[in-house]
Amino acid sequence: MAVVLPFESQPEPSIERLSALTQADMERVNALILSRTGSEVTMIPEVANHLISSGGKRLRPVLTLATAALTGYSGAGHIRLAAAVEFMHTATLLHDDVVDESELRRGKAAARMLWGNEASVLVGDFLLGQAFKMMVEVGSLRALEILSSAAAVIAEGEVMQLAAAKKLDTTEDAYLTVIRGKTAELFAAACEVGPVLAARSNAEQAACRSFGMNLGVAFQLVDDALDYGGSKARLGKNVGDDFREGKITLPVILAFRRGSADEREFWRAALEKGSNADADLERAIGLLARHGALDDTIDRARHYGAIAKDALALFPESEAKRALLEVVDFCVARAH
Amino acid sequence: MAVVLPFESQPEPSIERLSALTQADMERVNALILSRTGSEVTMIPEVANHLISSGGKRLRPVLTLATAALTGYSGAGHIRLAAAVEFMHTATLLHDDVVDESELRRGKAAARMLWGNEASVLVGDFLLGQAFKMMVEVGSLRALEILSSAAAVIAEGEVMQLAAAKKLDTTEDAYLTVIRGKTAELFAAACEVGPVLAARSNAEQAACRSFGMNLGVAFQLVDDALDYGGSKARLGKNVGDDFREGKITLPVILAFRRGSADEREFWRAALEKGSNADADLERAIGLLARHGALDDTIDRARHYGAIAKDALALFPESEAKRALLEVVDFCVARAH
Repeated sequence: MAVVLPFESQPEPSIERLSALTQADMERVNALILSRTGSEVTMIPEVANHLISSGGKRLRPVLTLATAALTGYSGAGHIRLAAAVEFMHTATLLHDDVVDESELRRGKAAARMLWGNEASVLVGDFLLGQAFKMMVEVGSLRALEILSSAAAVIAEGEVMQLAAAKKLDTTEDAYLTVIRGKTAELFAAACEVGPVLAARSNAEQAACRSFGMNLGVAFQLVDDALDYGGSKARLGKNVGDDFREGKITLPVILAFRRGSADEREFWRAALEKGSNADADLERAIGLLARHGALDDTIDRARHYGAIAKDALALFPESEAKRALLEVVDFCVARAH
Repeated sequence: MAVVLPFESQPEPSIERLSALTQADMERVNALILSRTGSEVTMIPEVANHLISSGGKRLRPVLTLATAALTGYSGAGHIRLAAAVEFMHTATLLHDDVVDESELRRGKAAARMLWGNEASVLVGDFLLGQAFKMMVEVGSLRALEILSSAAAVIAEGEVMQLAAAKKLDTTEDAYLTVIRGKTAELFAAACEVGPVLAARSNAEQAACRSFGMNLGVAFQLVDDALDYGGSKARLGKNVGDDFREGKITLPVILAFRRGSADEREFWRAALEKGSNADADLERAIGLLARHGALDDTIDRARHYGAIAKDALALFPESEAKRALLEVVDFCVARAH
């Protein structure tokens, strides 16, 4: 299986159905996002919009809208919750860039490179505050509970990753716990609040949560693989960023475990010193290939994708369900 | 008026009455704080407790408890809200230290000096998430509205301060807007949620909010003055920290406006380059004294303290009211 080359000849899975399904609602979400980044303190909309308008897919708010559609919600609360979810995500990105000392985000200079770490930390805090204000306006205590828990779990996942940094003997299980927290929890919460607003059964709420959680894990694993095999344009960041930052991700965990003593020595030296040498990155990519670490990471992603799809099995066929199932294929197919 | 020397011979205003009033409740708050910083990710309680156990006065949660007592609240929700208020405050401190690159906090090494900026950012986010979880558990949408708005306003005030950094021609009004946001808003919210839980009249809610807001402004102004005239032990930070960080505070705003062209040149040069020279700090303190800038800053603080006291006038006499009035005197008297 080729991880790097796109199969141009095959029709790629897309999120067109999902986009069409949620387009009208997303316009309202986008207008709300724009108005809620407004502040007399001009630095706030500048920093926030630099990131928000930078062409992210807005996958998380779209999931909130789509699961609200899936479960027949007819109110207006999902618009605010979707905007809140995007703000939580944006706040996390702003803070992550500071933590990781990243220079690029979505192919553009990271906000911290333009306005400094200070502004990234504080505007992130502002967006988090605005997110909670919007949630409170919706008035669903259960939705508030889900999203505020998610905020704590996400931060916990990030700290866990920080504590595990450079630990090459991190197990696959420990790594999964990290990405469930730092990435998948927000997918799960974004999907769970839809049926919560629609006051659907606990089983349906749990199904949507499980869909989001497993989709989020698959999404992160594909991201991890892409970091060693995507083009810059496709990725919005540089190939090898994780490597240079010394991040321990699943491809590395697998290659390290499967490697010889010499190879382990290489990984230790390269990731601990955060190697910037192209030759080191090339050797790393070579070792990942030798041990099938990228292919197997994608295989694991496919596994969680399958769980996500099965989670929705109890819902009857609908346009929303088809759109959500296609998202899973789209996320996994990004790896090609 | 002496700003620096304590008047050892006079009985200083104290917060003993307030401490006695809230002691039983504070024990429950402290237990809750301890349990809610718990995490399997050991770095979280380490970082959080480094700061939380570092002998802060916990003035903000105490204010929540005291205003709940003032307004006859008989439930248990004020415990969780008080803990949430302290978590919001702690999160702000963790992030502030990163933004200001501070080395000391409450007389100890700042968390970022021990665990790094990354941990300070992320553990702050975790505490913010936990704060919202606790608020949601209380279930008062109005209290949630007040505290989530406060979170956004606080961050906005911090960004405003960042944008105004090094601008010596900042007006006193503009500066007041900054400290209303970054400091006083949390005091106001902490005081407002007490009567909200007790379901008291809008007039009483507004009175408590006004008390907190004006107390917060007075508190910050005294802090600003102390930075140029307190001892390290008393202050928990170094004299001159604001000066070295190039922070524009009211004493500087006054001395700059009242100063000669030469003096203004000195302030510009010193604050823009963030002077570390003892001689520069000495000259700054000399200029503040020449123009009565510290005394007048304290006078301004006394003015806001008086407004705070009047805000409580509509409440009948009670132990809680007396305790709250004494806090104002205590905060202003810290300047001596």
